[in-house]
Amino acid sequence: MSIEEMFMREAIELSRKSVEAGGGPFGAVIVKDGKIVARGTNSVTLHNDPTAHAEICAIREACRVAGNFRLTGCELYTSCEPCPMCLSAAYWAGISRIYYANTRQDAAEAGFDDAFIYDQIALMPAQRSIPAEHVSNNDASSAFAMWKAKADKVMY
Amino acid sequence: MSIEEMFMREAIELSRKSVEAGGGPFGAVIVKDGKIVARGTNSVTLHNDPTAHAEICAIREACRVAGNFRLTGCELYTSCEPCPMCLSAAYWAGISRIYYANTRQDAAEAGFDDAFIYDQIALMPAQRSIPAEHVSNNDASSAFAMWKAKADKVMY
Repeated sequence: MSIEEMFMREAIELSRKSVEAGGGPFGAVIVKDGKIVARGTNSVTLHNDPTAHAEICAIREACRVAGNFRLTGCELYTSCEPCPMCLSAAYWAGISRIYYANTRQDAAEAGFDDAFIYDQIALMPAQRSIPAEHVSNNDASSAFAMWKAKADKVMY
Repeated sequence: MSIEEMFMREAIELSRKSVEAGGGPFGAVIVKDGKIVARGTNSVTLHNDPTAHAEICAIREACRVAGNFRLTGCELYTSCEPCPMCLSAAYWAGISRIYYANTRQDAAEAGFDDAFIYDQIALMPAQRSIPAEHVSNNDASSAFAMWKAKADKVMY
């Protein structure tokens, strides 16, 4: 068994345990230097948190352990292709590489909206099923101006 | 001033306060039945949490207050167009409508990757700057099978 298969086996085992525990059928691990540094399972309904996908939970836990908001050099193993929320979180965290087993189509067959949301994101804001409207405000850019001028800001 | 402008003003005020407090230049509010039910600011660097965008924080707080993982009938006002992570979170939460002031281009000019991540998501997994690899596993679908067979599952 390759090392990738070994870590994927752990992510899949977590996805099975998650169902048994009353959570969603998803599991993920974060790996750094060949070792698992964090695990996550889908606890959306258990914790009343729609953002508590397995990958988000694993990323948050890995950052907590590292004391850092960047996971440079870390890899994400997930039982299912990340939804756009989790994929974007991987970008914000600076994950190096993603491995997945099930696909967004497999998730759709199990009743999940991952593929639908991928399709929605590609649409113009006003055309989506959640319409997004631009509201003008003269002060809107002021926080960005403050940010640009701030000498001691922490970039991310 | 319209009611939309009033709520947007609050989101923008939060974005300014966030910079003053050492966070990122973003603020958001969740509104239900004409009232603000939750607020959020970007605390990525303050809390070492790359998922702690203003919208995610506001959604999580609104769900905590509601004791529910769905925010049916709620609207999201955000000082800047949601990144794909936050937009997807709005879908998972069942938000009804989104209002934003600054755009992803404004965010890019301030040094943020929102527009870049939107472009990345549209690419095939293997072509992205974070490559995503499919790993086969015979047990991969087992959690989905358990999920489909589970009589008392909570869908989301």
